[in-house]
Amino acid sequence: MQTLLESYVESNRARFVEELKEVIRFPTISAQPRHGRDLKRCAEWLANHLRQIGLESVEVISTTSHPIVCGEWQHAPGKPTVLIYGHYDVQPVDPISDWHSPPFEPTVRGNDLYGRGASDDKGQMFTHIKALEAYLRTSGKLPVNVKCLFEGEEEIGSPNLLPFFARNRDRLTADVAVLSDMWILGPNRPAITYAMRGALSLELEVSGPGNDLHSGNFGGAVHSPLQVLCEIIAGLHDAEGRVTVPEFYRQVRPVAPRERAYMARAGIDAQVLRDAGIAKDWGESGFTPYERIAIRPALSVNGILGGYQGLGPKAVIPARSAAKLDFRLVPDQDPSAINRLFRQHIIRIMPPTVRTSIRTHFVAKPVQINRHHPTISAAETAYHKGFGARPVFLRMGGTIPVVGLFQQVLGIPVVLMGFALPDDRMHAPNEKFHLPNFFNGIATSIWFLADAARQLSMKAIPIWKPADQRQAPADLT
Amino acid sequence: MQTLLESYVESNRARFVEELKEVIRFPTISAQPRHGRDLKRCAEWLANHLRQIGLESVEVISTTSHPIVCGEWQHAPGKPTVLIYGHYDVQPVDPISDWHSPPFEPTVRGNDLYGRGASDDKGQMFTHIKALEAYLRTSGKLPVNVKCLFEGEEEIGSPNLLPFFARNRDRLTADVAVLSDMWILGPNRPAITYAMRGALSLELEVSGPGNDLHSGNFGGAVHSPLQVLCEIIAGLHDAEGRVTVPEFYRQVRPVAPRERAYMARAGIDAQVLRDAGIAKDWGESGFTPYERIAIRPALSVNGILGGYQGLGPKAVIPARSAAKLDFRLVPDQDPSAINRLFRQHIIRIMPPTVRTSIRTHFVAKPVQINRHHPTISAAETAYHKGFGARPVFLRMGGTIPVVGLFQQVLGIPVVLMGFALPDDRMHAPNEKFHLPNFFNGIATSIWFLADAARQLSMKAIPIWKPADQRQAPADLT
Repeated sequence: MQTLLESYVESNRARFVEELKEVIRFPTISAQPRHGRDLKRCAEWLANHLRQIGLESVEVISTTSHPIVCGEWQHAPGKPTVLIYGHYDVQPVDPISDWHSPPFEPTVRGNDLYGRGASDDKGQMFTHIKALEAYLRTSGKLPVNVKCLFEGEEEIGSPNLLPFFARNRDRLTADVAVLSDMWILGPNRPAITYAMRGALSLELEVSGPGNDLHSGNFGGAVHSPLQVLCEIIAGLHDAEGRVTVPEFYRQVRPVAPRERAYMARAGIDAQVLRDAGIAKDWGESGFTPYERIAIRPALSVNGILGGYQGLGPKAVIPARSAAKLDFRLVPDQDPSAINRLFRQHIIRIMPPTVRTSIRTHFVAKPVQINRHHPTISAAETAYHKGFGARPVFLRMGGTIPVVGLFQQVLGIPVVLMGFALPDDRMHAPNEKFHLPNFFNGIATSIWFLADAARQLSMKAIPIWKPADQRQAPADLT
Repeated sequence: MQTLLESYVESNRARFVEELKEVIRFPTISAQPRHGRDLKRCAEWLANHLRQIGLESVEVISTTSHPIVCGEWQHAPGKPTVLIYGHYDVQPVDPISDWHSPPFEPTVRGNDLYGRGASDDKGQMFTHIKALEAYLRTSGKLPVNVKCLFEGEEEIGSPNLLPFFARNRDRLTADVAVLSDMWILGPNRPAITYAMRGALSLELEVSGPGNDLHSGNFGGAVHSPLQVLCEIIAGLHDAEGRVTVPEFYRQVRPVAPRERAYMARAGIDAQVLRDAGIAKDWGESGFTPYERIAIRPALSVNGILGGYQGLGPKAVIPARSAAKLDFRLVPDQDPSAINRLFRQHIIRIMPPTVRTSIRTHFVAKPVQINRHHPTISAAETAYHKGFGARPVFLRMGGTIPVVGLFQQVLGIPVVLMGFALPDDRMHAPNEKFHLPNFFNGIATSIWFLADAARQLSMKAIPIWKPADQRQAPADLT
């Protein structure tokens, strides 16, 4: 049967790419309210597409902001149910001037398809949709029961998923969830992710003068909110690259030497520097670059608002300024507890010349998965067949809020099966998707569904490494 | 004759305001190249207006960016020549959302005319134009010879004025230059400015990674250029509010106790805090707020570029970031020397993880004027008649590059005769011009031209306090 599927994919490659380009053309930036209509149109397009390939009960479900698209195929009695998750929203495109082709006019150059969302996550989500299509168009059936869940709010922290999950526990019942929204190591180096950092996304505002002031007339006599913001940010790391918020590291679960040795063998350290395009590394002393992004928490400044950002000079002291801050957290750090510690710290250090306020954009808990679970073995086999190489096991620095929700609310195992490349520039200008990975991804998804059908017993073994059990991390290696 | 002039102004007030609104409607933001055409159209409008009121040899002179408007009236043989300077370009309007009415749709609310450029400098420039009109329409002549020079690049440091002055020395010969682009203390508290700080406007760029990075995937292992920029800026002031660039204060001319006592008597300190809308002052210890903005140099951050400034979160580590920096300098600091010191300092402190580059936007030397010069006495008399109150003498924190050029290139005395109020929000959202000041300003200009006609001997006394003479500042009080 696989031969039939393979030749179906082979002969439809060009159309698959054209369809992916169609999805990318919707400017689905979830963070920007003016794109609300584009997200709605994209959701409708996706729903129609799912109906066309043969999924049933397809629905576009409204939320308080961007809709969720659901669909299913439930005609494999006695077989397990696979829940396929993806997201059709994308990151903002700033700085727009750095793009070589417009972000929402997908363009193929060489073996790569360029466009915002090409890899994160429209392209990776599409691998599974095309795998389903291949089964349904060649044999009229799937080897397992399938539920699809595609959301439009992943890039803003999935604020509507928790209430949606809570209201739809039965509808979302499944034996395993699979999601593809991450890196592998290279075109021929597949990888399975078994840990992700949590996230705490904040906005810190500093305000001072009643309105923007002329910096000639007032410079020297006013504590500029922009300067205070810089002073606060500069003080959030010490000379050793550690975050200075008191108690920040208290809940960090120690990682055993055996696990660190396994990580070292994966050979990621040099790759981190190469992928980042930096000559010299930086970070918490005592840890390698891979460890710093995987088993250590971090704080990044994503942007600073306030003052003049246009061309040329403007002699102004801004009345307000703000910084977008992004904490990445590791087991057993609790994002809400870190949020409290940070707020206490800011109150403690703020100078009396200004006022501060803090807004929480989103929180997500860190996640760690038992890589000896049978579903993971199924994924391993599928990658081997799809890419012709055995996958390595990776810890990922990023965060996908839904993974924590699968764990906490639905209690189902998750397989994190990435098809993007480290240099695909997810979140950055000139995002791309490597087309050989698109096709190998479709093959991998086809094999995974077939293998999952043989894994009826996979529910028996806990896949999660719960934060409160403090299991020896050595178990994972 | 003054009665005739006064009644002319009185009966034309409404038309004067309508004409001023016409000038404000041109969005003449000189820092933004896309407004080039608007500046050209505004220059043509001004030139036509000068022709209509009776000026001669009116010309719009092209420069490498925005044009200069010149005009003259030379039919008062034996009388002195007054050069009237103003600028028709304006500051950018960011943040646009803080404006209560659109910046280029001038709106009268109460006694104030709101709009970008209402006071800086279209409104103040217009007082002199309307004074000339009053003379020419009532008597057909002026009491002095007049040359007008209106530029479109003041807000970007007047880059084309120096070459223009050098090429047109003869054309610009005059006995005194008058310019109105500054504050007085209140509607009934006129002031004459006798010192202005110099300026050095720079842009510091920090770059690191090859492109913007996903802060989840890389956070903790990359020295973010935005974080480095914050660290650099935070380190540019010490705990005493002093600039930390080595040798920065070496050339600062000491100010005598008598001068500081005179400044204290002007009662500006509380006003600085009130005008800034701050509860608590800040700055170099050992100096009062007025001293900090007048006799001490300062460094302000005008804006930070880099990272995401839109709504909501974006998980990114920007590849580049930049800060717009604004030094204000006092006698005898040389902007070029400070520029060198700053660049050496940045090279010394930059971490090995990033690259930096620095761009100079503009430089202007500090200026100090002998307030016992006869032209200043003429201004004093004019204010007394125009506002019904004697002016106080002020040092100003701001910078008007052309003032240094009048001194250095043309060697003519300058009278700095402001009509704006401290709360007119020059450079900020909701800029306004207090209309009673507009009309009192026209009256003051009328009286100044009449008085200047009686000051034939005013060239004999040096008006400048040259930086290299180190004259006792006590002379000025």
